[in-house]
Amino acid sequence: MTTLEDLNDADRGRFVEQVAGLYDGAVWLAERAAQRRPYRSPAHLKHTLAELVRNAEADARMSLLKQHRPAPATDDATPEHAQRLQHLAADYLTRFGHAIVVAPGPRGTPLSATELIAECERRLDDHADVERDECLRQLHRIAELRLNRLLGTEPELGNVVWNWAEHLAQHSDPGHAEQGQLTVTYLTDAHRACAQRLSHWMRQHCGFDEVGIDAVGNVVGVYHGSDPDAPRLLTGSHYDTVRNGGKYDGRLGILVPMACVRELHRAGRRLPFGLEVVGFAEEEGQRYKATFLGSGALVGQFDEAWLDQADADGITMRQAMQHAGLCIDDIPKLRRDPSRYLGFVEVHIEQGPVLNEIDLPLGVVTSINGSVRYLGEIAGTASHAGTTPMDRRRDAAAAVAELVLVGTVGMLEVPSGSINVVPGRCRFSLDLRATTNEARDELTRDVLAALASICERRGVRCKVEETMRADAAPSAPPWQRRWERAVDAAGLPVHRLPSGAGHDAMKLHELMPQAMLFVRGEHAGISHNPLESTTSDDMQLAVDAFAHLLQQVAHNDEQTT
Amino acid sequence: MTTLEDLNDADRGRFVEQVAGLYDGAVWLAERAAQRRPYRSPAHLKHTLAELVRNAEADARMSLLKQHRPAPATDDATPEHAQRLQHLAADYLTRFGHAIVVAPGPRGTPLSATELIAECERRLDDHADVERDECLRQLHRIAELRLNRLLGTEPELGNVVWNWAEHLAQHSDPGHAEQGQLTVTYLTDAHRACAQRLSHWMRQHCGFDEVGIDAVGNVVGVYHGSDPDAPRLLTGSHYDTVRNGGKYDGRLGILVPMACVRELHRAGRRLPFGLEVVGFAEEEGQRYKATFLGSGALVGQFDEAWLDQADADGITMRQAMQHAGLCIDDIPKLRRDPSRYLGFVEVHIEQGPVLNEIDLPLGVVTSINGSVRYLGEIAGTASHAGTTPMDRRRDAAAAVAELVLVGTVGMLEVPSGSINVVPGRCRFSLDLRATTNEARDELTRDVLAALASICERRGVRCKVEETMRADAAPSAPPWQRRWERAVDAAGLPVHRLPSGAGHDAMKLHELMPQAMLFVRGEHAGISHNPLESTTSDDMQLAVDAFAHLLQQVAHNDEQTT
Repeated sequence: MTTLEDLNDADRGRFVEQVAGLYDGAVWLAERAAQRRPYRSPAHLKHTLAELVRNAEADARMSLLKQHRPAPATDDATPEHAQRLQHLAADYLTRFGHAIVVAPGPRGTPLSATELIAECERRLDDHADVERDECLRQLHRIAELRLNRLLGTEPELGNVVWNWAEHLAQHSDPGHAEQGQLTVTYLTDAHRACAQRLSHWMRQHCGFDEVGIDAVGNVVGVYHGSDPDAPRLLTGSHYDTVRNGGKYDGRLGILVPMACVRELHRAGRRLPFGLEVVGFAEEEGQRYKATFLGSGALVGQFDEAWLDQADADGITMRQAMQHAGLCIDDIPKLRRDPSRYLGFVEVHIEQGPVLNEIDLPLGVVTSINGSVRYLGEIAGTASHAGTTPMDRRRDAAAAVAELVLVGTVGMLEVPSGSINVVPGRCRFSLDLRATTNEARDELTRDVLAALASICERRGVRCKVEETMRADAAPSAPPWQRRWERAVDAAGLPVHRLPSGAGHDAMKLHELMPQAMLFVRGEHAGISHNPLESTTSDDMQLAVDAFAHLLQQVAHNDEQTT
Repeated sequence: MTTLEDLNDADRGRFVEQVAGLYDGAVWLAERAAQRRPYRSPAHLKHTLAELVRNAEADARMSLLKQHRPAPATDDATPEHAQRLQHLAADYLTRFGHAIVVAPGPRGTPLSATELIAECERRLDDHADVERDECLRQLHRIAELRLNRLLGTEPELGNVVWNWAEHLAQHSDPGHAEQGQLTVTYLTDAHRACAQRLSHWMRQHCGFDEVGIDAVGNVVGVYHGSDPDAPRLLTGSHYDTVRNGGKYDGRLGILVPMACVRELHRAGRRLPFGLEVVGFAEEEGQRYKATFLGSGALVGQFDEAWLDQADADGITMRQAMQHAGLCIDDIPKLRRDPSRYLGFVEVHIEQGPVLNEIDLPLGVVTSINGSVRYLGEIAGTASHAGTTPMDRRRDAAAAVAELVLVGTVGMLEVPSGSINVVPGRCRFSLDLRATTNEARDELTRDVLAALASICERRGVRCKVEETMRADAAPSAPPWQRRWERAVDAAGLPVHRLPSGAGHDAMKLHELMPQAMLFVRGEHAGISHNPLESTTSDDMQLAVDAFAHLLQQVAHNDEQTT
């Protein structure tokens, strides 16, 4: 068994030998890493190795890929599987010039033959640059697992969180569950089962003192502090999902603090303040158009009109809530009194590529971006593609095309378009975000002015309708600093980034100071997608950071009292 | 009663008085027109007036619009109609600075109150430049009707064609007829009724000697020549329509030669050659993917595989043909022997803005453009719009947007797009055309290379599938010259233009020399749209031109024999 201290203190040759082995004998890499000693933590070493690779010469990076020795096929492979994998490997080699690198699953467990085939098929379609970077990241993941073995460490709490997330993901709405898709929308059977499981774990596995499901379906667990009158720290995230979503979006922010409470309870420790962990029932607005319903209720923003909205099957929200046994009359009582809280913190998977790209497991959020959304339609003149000269066209799609190159257009359609008809209409959406309300409004003015000038020049007419406007939520500096210290304590560089996505913290922001911690997502941070994932190692770091933040608050509080 | 000769010979004052009245007293216009005398035909005078307006100072053009005295409301207007029209008139004046100009319908009949309201509502949405030009064209049309009255002339054969077109348009497919839409697809009841009507008119109203419906549903009428062994002239166009299409696309090319035969038969005249007029059963490829089925059969290109294609209701083409009593086995016999034909000519509505814009009722086609069509899909990476920085996106729609600015993209869709998701996929069509095959192929190479470079730069992948490739069909010079002489004989300048659209003549081109005549479409030449229209006056000129062409051929033939 080797320790990190051994590696820091080892002579250069011994260090190089051990570290080169993490990457199938990459001596050049280990030599560069040797110069960066001492390492403050295994995470520090892993990040430095990845950074050295990222900044290395292209040839050196390619040599890593070429000299990688893939693990043998899994035991469950049938001859058909083996044959298919052989074909895929050949195609892959032809396309990219090296063998595919596939790390084991998030917890280090090997992929099954079917999973491996799906992975190869999917990645064969990738762009060459994307795929090369993905292979390098998979190499880093393999190196991480090897380093864990070398150091004899296991991300135990990360594994606990991983197990919980897997268990929760067994519940999925009808019509999705059958296809292996994860979909948990407000107050379906699967959704209520998730609430039940979370309550059970909080009570039985973690030692929360009070656990209940509130009037909108939020799961609320409280771990009492040594001073029952001291203001509590509020935390949590949502447990509903988008359709065919991932296992970590929202849920990670419930499970990470649960793991911390589990450890506090095991150690018989009490913090000087209470910790209140909320699993928000609804954030995604999938079954009903009522995003942030769960966290909204805590800030007194439950809209009574929502109750009469019907879902796709005609079931109103009121009926769904009554069916779930929720006490609608009590909803107004859910509003929290800010004087009873220290603040709100939220852990969330990044849902973006930033941390993944710089090989950092954690990032600190500076602000949740403000946003504004529009639905629009441009009306030009439908005309015959063959007979209308280019300079005589009033092409609605061409006008929208210019807009697509300016702002985010996620929905785009020429209704009933024909191959030989110049588009007379084109529908689109527009999503604009910025770190402050002022920057958002300035951006909006610029983009709408650009749209107006495009339409004037092309002789088409445009209608846009604002469908959403959300304020920016800058992080509270003292809470942001606590996250920064927690990341630094893990031996990692502090990377600050805005959150482009909305989160429950955005709602709580209206009532109390808030700050968020982001956890790297695998696969370039893909989210709202079954490929969304993170690893036990990254989740362990998130648990550690959360525990560190709790200690900082406890320490501050002790100092001030 | 005044004649054109009177106008040509009148003293300047008298000319100005009469011609200024055509435009509500536009003396400046009449004075300029007086200098251009003598006029070879009323069409020549009308065209010259329009040309003088087009080239006049902007102020002078605006004065025409401002001094126009609109006709009083129609008799059928209820008080509600009158009120609505008053509102629309006020809105229109605010938007454009002058009153709307609305000419009577295609045959000179007044619009009903409902038609007038619909016209005002539609045009209120027009771009200002478009609408000003449209008003001027409506003024020219009003002037044309006034000139007809002044000269005591009526476009009698144009009216016959107009009547026929209106009658045919009474037949429309189920689901469309109820909504007042014209849709006639291959071998539906409406389609077979059209064939029946055409046959009936050919036989009973026009005096064709042989009339029949062939094995694919083409209506074939033959007017014998004085020499039964002489090669025939072949002409015609299609009687099927696109969905919610216009009344003239295709049909005009059947009805115009029918009107000529009607006149020949009434006068008891025989040409030295037979005239074979074909109403092609299918050109648009709407019910089955089998465009140019009708004319294709005449050149031996019926594809047996088509028979097993099913329509949207699961009815195969074979079943549809059997149900219509067509003898599938006889299809190969439809192939024409080119040695038995002089050539093929086709009259067609332009379906584009060119003739409309230069105020010319007729144009001579130089070539039917070659074309190539693709369906494509770009695969990028769907990602969260809020969390994926702009420079990290692989936005499929943004890649297609760049293509939209290069070539004609008529179909465009982000499948299941969401307002807050960067598009991971985008489907599109691409339609490229050019006057020769060489130019088309060069264009195709350039556009596909541009697409490849867009995809490379954006890190997305693209698949394109060629779905159609049609050769260019340059007009046969002797036949093009005959059309040119016919246009010149009408006193009009000869305007030559390529056809961007495909036409039945393209198919016949493979077997015999061909040339086409275009007739101006109203409303900027809009086609594949219920607004597609032409006037009795323009159709009269087309009948006259066709008759002139027949005389030229007869004369040539007499000279050579």
